[in-house]
Amino acid sequence: QTFSRKIVGHSLFQPIVIGIILLNAIFVGVETYGSLYEKYRELFLTFDIIVLVLFTIEIILKMIAEEKTLNFFKDNWNVFDFLIVAASYIFIGSPFITVLRVLRVLRVFRTISVIPSLRKLVNALLMTLPSLGTIMLLLFIVFYIFSVIGTMLFQDVSAEYFGNLQLTALTLFQMITLESWASGVMRPVMEITPWAWIYFVVFILVGAFVVLNLFVGVIVNNFEK
Amino acid sequence: QTFSRKIVGHSLFQPIVIGIILLNAIFVGVETYGSLYEKYRELFLTFDIIVLVLFTIEIILKMIAEEKTLNFFKDNWNVFDFLIVAASYIFIGSPFITVLRVLRVLRVFRTISVIPSLRKLVNALLMTLPSLGTIMLLLFIVFYIFSVIGTMLFQDVSAEYFGNLQLTALTLFQMITLESWASGVMRPVMEITPWAWIYFVVFILVGAFVVLNLFVGVIVNNFEK
Amino acid sequence: QTFSRKIVGHSLFQPIVIGIILLNAIFVGVETYGSLYEKYRELFLTFDIIVLVLFTIEIILKMIAEEKTLNFFKDNWNVFDFLIVAASYIFIGSPFITVLRVLRVLRVFRTISVIPSLRKLVNALLMTLPSLGTIMLLLFIVFYIFSVIGTMLFQDVSAEYFGNLQLTALTLFQMITLESWASGVMRPVMEITPWAWIYFVVFILVGAFVVLNLFVGVIVNNFEK
Amino acid sequence: QTFSRKIVGHSLFQPIVIGIILLNAIFVGVETYGSLYEKYRELFLTFDIIVLVLFTIEIILKMIAEEKTLNFFKDNWNVFDFLIVAASYIFIGSPFITVLRVLRVLRVFRTISVIPSLRKLVNALLMTLPSLGTIMLLLFIVFYIFSVIGTMLFQDVSAEYFGNLQLTALTLFQMITLESWASGVMRPVMEITPWAWIYFVVFILVGAFVVLNLFVGVIVNNFEK
Ligand code: NA
Ligand code: NA
Repeated sequence: QTFSRKIVGHSLFQPIVIGIILLNAIFVGVETYGSLYEKYRELFLTFDIIVLVLFTIEIILKMIAEEKTLNFFKDNWNVFDFLIVAASYIFIGSPFITVLRVLRVLRVFRTISVIPSLRKLVNALLMTLPSLGTIMLLLFIVFYIFSVIGTMLFQDVSAEYFGNLQLTALTLFQMITLESWASGVMRPVMEITPWAWIYFVVFILVGAFVVLNLFVGVIVNNFEK
Repeated sequence: QTFSRKIVGHSLFQPIVIGIILLNAIFVGVETYGSLYEKYRELFLTFDIIVLVLFTIEIILKMIAEEKTLNFFKDNWNVFDFLIVAASYIFIGSPFITVLRVLRVLRVFRTISVIPSLRKLVNALLMTLPSLGTIMLLLFIVFYIFSVIGTMLFQDVSAEYFGNLQLTALTLFQMITLESWASGVMRPVMEITPWAWIYFVVFILVGAFVVLNLFVGVIVNNFEK
Repeated sequence: QTFSRKIVGHSLFQPIVIGIILLNAIFVGVETYGSLYEKYRELFLTFDIIVLVLFTIEIILKMIAEEKTLNFFKDNWNVFDFLIVAASYIFIGSPFITVLRVLRVLRVFRTISVIPSLRKLVNALLMTLPSLGTIMLLLFIVFYIFSVIGTMLFQDVSAEYFGNLQLTALTLFQMITLESWASGVMRPVMEITPWAWIYFVVFILVGAFVVLNLFVGVIVNNFEK
Repeated sequence: QTFSRKIVGHSLFQPIVIGIILLNAIFVGVETYGSLYEKYRELFLTFDIIVLVLFTIEIILKMIAEEKTLNFFKDNWNVFDFLIVAASYIFIGSPFITVLRVLRVLRVFRTISVIPSLRKLVNALLMTLPSLGTIMLLLFIVFYIFSVIGTMLFQDVSAEYFGNLQLTALTLFQMITLESWASGVMRPVMEITPWAWIYFVVFILVGAFVVLNLFVGVIVNNFEK
């Protein structure tokens, strides 16, 4: 334990870990260039195994360095690091090769875990969310009601946008970002049901009002920080 | 009355009501899947009648529990609950089956009436509106003037967007959300009337300015809360 | 003068003027329905002349009621009322019938001049503008530079969007509202000049930054109110 | 040096420089009209050389007027002026005529360098950026991860939007401005990979959350100003 503490406490420990995460990030980006990937396939695979091993060693060292190993899991970011690395082991050699590739990219989020200023920022951002719980519940209720009504009314009018409950929910999410809500969704529906504008205009007004207050909530939380 | 007060005051009363509202919500969502609906049609209809009866009993109990029955109607949310249930009775057996189905979905808004934190939030949100009265009147005047001028100028140029006063108003509402205002509305109109850009640019500038101040009004109201 | 002061000061004077403005507003809206307009053409024309005469009488009375007639023009809203009415006389019988029709609609803005709460609000809104002078000048400079460069670079690539300096300016205005800036403008241009994304991304970033600070200026002004 | 100080200090010096910058701006705008440009080609070229010479004289005078010439480069705006003029000399007679033409337009930014109120404003705006460093780094990390994953998943599904890492990054930038993110990008991709909505919805939510907090950071910085 003293040995692991000496390593973890060493001033070079964190820069080296950050360095490995950055190398992992660069490799993962370079691999998207198919031609390069094919050429150096084995090099990339080898490097990925090295990274996984180094991360495992790093986590084990950090766990031993704690007085009680379970203290390691008190920090959510350590839990995140642990899960990201463990998941890679679980999916190795599975047919879900896409999941494994995506996990390797998600390791880049570890830059947040290991760089203190980033970790502080993300913690601060995440801490603004609980106080927004009630208004997000309200938004969910509004979404649910408009989803059910929308599917009910327009299922046979526009299958792509309102064919079932999930499709309608996705359409409502698109519309709350105001993306083509009128030109892409409402007006084609109005060709068949002319009075449908009521549904859309009411949703935009109610949705925009709730989302605006949600944003104001985020702003006010920031001010109190 | 004492009997009804005992029930209403019972600690299980509100959770049971919330439970029925949630069951109603789930059923109303499940029914959108046509195949499931056809298969269990009678089950759904039966459940809906049970829910309506239970809501009626709940409201009657609440009315009796008040010293004077009219006190029940002092809380706007009780009025809302009453109307939602009464409306279902009015439309039962009418040919307007869509209205009845929509009403059943609107019952899900009762979650707001019965869960105190939601009711408090929605009351707070609604109370920000009266102080915005003047600026909403200004926005209405701007909309009206641009609607009349737009219909006047572009009625024969673009019937879909400016064919009559209501269509123009809907187009203006779409444009104030900036949705395809240039690519979908202005540029096609400019093909025929090249100087029309003045109308659209002025509307976007004036409209955005008024709406921005409307949003600021909402933010300021929130701060004073 | 005493006579005119008695009328202007009369408690019914303002409500009657508001009433005439409202009637003018309703007529101007009804006239957009072509069939109705054709049917009652003469009625509408007669009413319009009555309105113009009544407004003229109203303005003359207000002018006489002032100690010195020129005091009437100290209030900008009186100047607005005067211009709106005078312009109608200038264009009567001219071939520019559209201008006359638009002017009749613009009279509806007089609701702001005569209703005190609206006048106060609009004055407050307009008073936030002078302090934004420098940042609007900066925005103009950014627009001008990007307009010239855009016309220079893309004149032959996309005549509709960048054919000359004014067309480019209009395209930039559309893009600063983020309306189809990528799908409608940038990507078609990139088909021919692949590196053009630099121009568009830089403009969106710079433009959004300046406009955001412009909005913040409006918000801060509101807070100091 | 005393001579140059007398000129630089002269009350007419700055107005004359502003005048030359404005003339340069007007010429550069007029030249976009091809027919005019062809007609007066030599006049424009001559004027441009005059402007370049005058700017050079102005900069040399300012450099001599300082006690130590290097003090001239302490003000970033002087460095900007110097670079803009020097770059014109470097590219004169090069085949990169477009670069030279763009540089001539960029000289119009000198209005900011020479007008004090504009310079103050832009300095204030630029000074809000350093404090946003961490959140911009977070945004970069989010962009990078979603770029790699997006290219990985949709390279073969939608070459235009996700063909390689840079194309995906551009698509992500387009989507964070909400421009056609669903109608133009997500739904076509969903035709081939139906579960892709998860990628897009998560990106919009995360991206919007980070950008919103970025904007709040800008607002808060403004308040502390
Ligand atoms: Na938009
Ligand atoms: Na759009």
